[in-house]
Amino acid sequence: MSETTTELEHQYADLKAKNLKLDLTRGKPSPAQLDLSNPLLMLPGPEDFRDASGTDLRNYGGPDGLPELREIFGELLGIPAAQLLAYGNASLAIMHDSFVHALLHGVPGGTGPWRDVDGLAFIAPVPGYDRHFTICEALGIRMIPVPPVDGRLDIATIRDLVAADPSIKGMWAVPAYANPTGVTLTADEAEALAGMDAAAPDFRLFWDNAYVVHHLTEDEPQPLDILGMSARAGHPDRPLVFASTAKITFPGAGVAFFGSSPANVEWMRLHTSAQTIGPDKINQLRHLRFFGTAEGVREHMRAHREIVAPRFSLALDILERRLGDSATWSRPLGGYFINLDVAPGAASLAIRLAGEAGVAVTPAGSAFPYRLDPADTNIRIAPTFPSLDDLEAAIDALCTCVLLAEERIG
Amino acid sequence: MSETTTELEHQYADLKAKNLKLDLTRGKPSPAQLDLSNPLLMLPGPEDFRDASGTDLRNYGGPDGLPELREIFGELLGIPAAQLLAYGNASLAIMHDSFVHALLHGVPGGTGPWRDVDGLAFIAPVPGYDRHFTICEALGIRMIPVPPVDGRLDIATIRDLVAADPSIKGMWAVPAYANPTGVTLTADEAEALAGMDAAAPDFRLFWDNAYVVHHLTEDEPQPLDILGMSARAGHPDRPLVFASTAKITFPGAGVAFFGSSPANVEWMRLHTSAQTIGPDKINQLRHLRFFGTAEGVREHMRAHREIVAPRFSLALDILERRLGDSATWSRPLGGYFINLDVAPGAASLAIRLAGEAGVAVTPAGSAFPYRLDPADTNIRIAPTFPSLDDLEAAIDALCTCVLLAEERIG
Repeated sequence: MSETTTELEHQYADLKAKNLKLDLTRGKPSPAQLDLSNPLLMLPGPEDFRDASGTDLRNYGGPDGLPELREIFGELLGIPAAQLLAYGNASLAIMHDSFVHALLHGVPGGTGPWRDVDGLAFIAPVPGYDRHFTICEALGIRMIPVPPVDGRLDIATIRDLVAADPSIKGMWAVPAYANPTGVTLTADEAEALAGMDAAAPDFRLFWDNAYVVHHLTEDEPQPLDILGMSARAGHPDRPLVFASTAKITFPGAGVAFFGSSPANVEWMRLHTSAQTIGPDKINQLRHLRFFGTAEGVREHMRAHREIVAPRFSLALDILERRLGDSATWSRPLGGYFINLDVAPGAASLAIRLAGEAGVAVTPAGSAFPYRLDPADTNIRIAPTFPSLDDLEAAIDALCTCVLLAEERIG
Repeated sequence: MSETTTELEHQYADLKAKNLKLDLTRGKPSPAQLDLSNPLLMLPGPEDFRDASGTDLRNYGGPDGLPELREIFGELLGIPAAQLLAYGNASLAIMHDSFVHALLHGVPGGTGPWRDVDGLAFIAPVPGYDRHFTICEALGIRMIPVPPVDGRLDIATIRDLVAADPSIKGMWAVPAYANPTGVTLTADEAEALAGMDAAAPDFRLFWDNAYVVHHLTEDEPQPLDILGMSARAGHPDRPLVFASTAKITFPGAGVAFFGSSPANVEWMRLHTSAQTIGPDKINQLRHLRFFGTAEGVREHMRAHREIVAPRFSLALDILERRLGDSATWSRPLGGYFINLDVAPGAASLAIRLAGEAGVAVTPAGSAFPYRLDPADTNIRIAPTFPSLDDLEAAIDALCTCVLLAEERIG
């Protein structure tokens, strides 16, 4: 046992003695962030239940969602309101339903229900969002993991796979501040995905724009116009855009959105009409009153940034100080995560050590289909929820565990 | 043309000259009913976002729904709160999802996904709820209509069908104040459904208790304990119970419930966990604060009754006065509809005549699978939404159209 190892084993023993109970697992807003939206708890307010056209939003109807709220989020997402539907509280549910409708009925431009496709598959860029992969796994959709090249999407490999195999019906993409890598696609990358040849005529890009307004700096880039790009490339029906206010207002009590081509919107409308008479329009009105305008959303997100950015800075500083050249990590400009890559083979051990020392970290492999991180390097850090003090203690503890794990595996 | 016919044609011409614009189509609460729930527009109120255990309901989590609200509706539905899940705003969506999960994954006690069953079928008692039938039609589930005998469920026929055919995987039932017949099942009838032999080991009773607290008289019967009955009969997993606050508070902005056996609840939890991180718990808290207790819900429904019961009385009086022996109709003790049966072959003509006179009536055949009313007798009247004056004009106009249609087909 080297002196360094002894020192780290020592540090780890001290860590365990502290009986920490800290959590870095999920991308949850902190209580201070939630407080920003507390006015929603009293909205829309007495006698306020009509939209601009005078419709009583308390009653049945309005399956497309509140027009004025669709205008606001249309502006933020770069999608015409006519092509943007406002639904319930979970964009995940819309993604799941999109698969269900495709499996049972097929999609516009397709040749039939996806469930009839042998070896039905989706491209899953890794590391990615665990809940995307859970949906595919639950529905029996084979995932083809595609690791990054130089930290960015491996467009060449994706292009080759998609052009060759008609059983590949689509691909996941988180275009802005991806979970967990923090990477934002460039316009060129988006154009490549919009325009690439696909063996499946009904190939779909599941474009989860979950973090489109979640900037960590004063730079607030506009969303990529994936619908326009795809239309110009001759694939108007390729992208399905998902978004929600989950990490803007209250995660469980927000509004989710679906945007796409006119044909896909009509398709979604048709299948949704069998499912429900309409979304919670009063909650949509609540959000409309709270934000007022798209600029209201941007201002609100700046207040989030004030709370969140210092947490990211603190975590990154500790990683720099403690890990130096022992690992690599993302320095995201937005979103909710820091992506930490440790020495191959050390991630699961580090996560186990952290857990045993009272620091919960997202389970090893979570950012990969079937929870299989082939090199065992990836750790997802979610720094938003803990207090600054807790975060400092948790990241410092995690660093000790990473260094110790790297030492132990030699 | 007889004198009577001439007189009716005359009346109808007068009716058209009035340029009415009235609507009897959908079971929607009236604005006065919606006003009863207006306190929800300001709830839960400032700084009120925790459940009894102290959990912050603004954040992610809590996939089963708010425990305190499940207690209240568990009491009203006669289901232990542990077996009752509180979800989003639409029980229809839970019914749809139940089919989707069954189609794609199968159900507890079954032999595999329902989509693999040749001729997959459901028993559809008629007349019934159009949106139930729409779900089956959209998902390709064959419906077997079973007409009533002496105005009640034809248990003998249902029993024979279900015992003989393993492709019959389930049955729709609206146990209290059914849509549109108003019929409430007796305990004996429920016991028969709970206990009957089924060729399919995974036969399911889709038990839509939409009107369980929607009494039109001071008699407020307890719900049938279909879960207990089925368990005692050796079929604990047979019933899936659905309910919602749609016609209790705001139709679009309420809370829906799913209740069943422990195995089915676990099944629903599992498949829902791939779909969403949790329901809108703030809206559930809003409802909890509004009602307080199960008795609070009962009191609230009595206020609804004060508004609704006079509309039913008025409509029934006009039917009696105008139609006499020319038709038969239900005299419901609860729920949202009056079921009108006219002379065979006259319903669609009467509805068309009414439409041309500006009185919208639910399209002919709506209460039947595939919109096929074989005898063309059935008209569903929804008397809750119009004002008393509008309702009087609309029912009187409809009676004229019924009489005229009966004369014309004479």
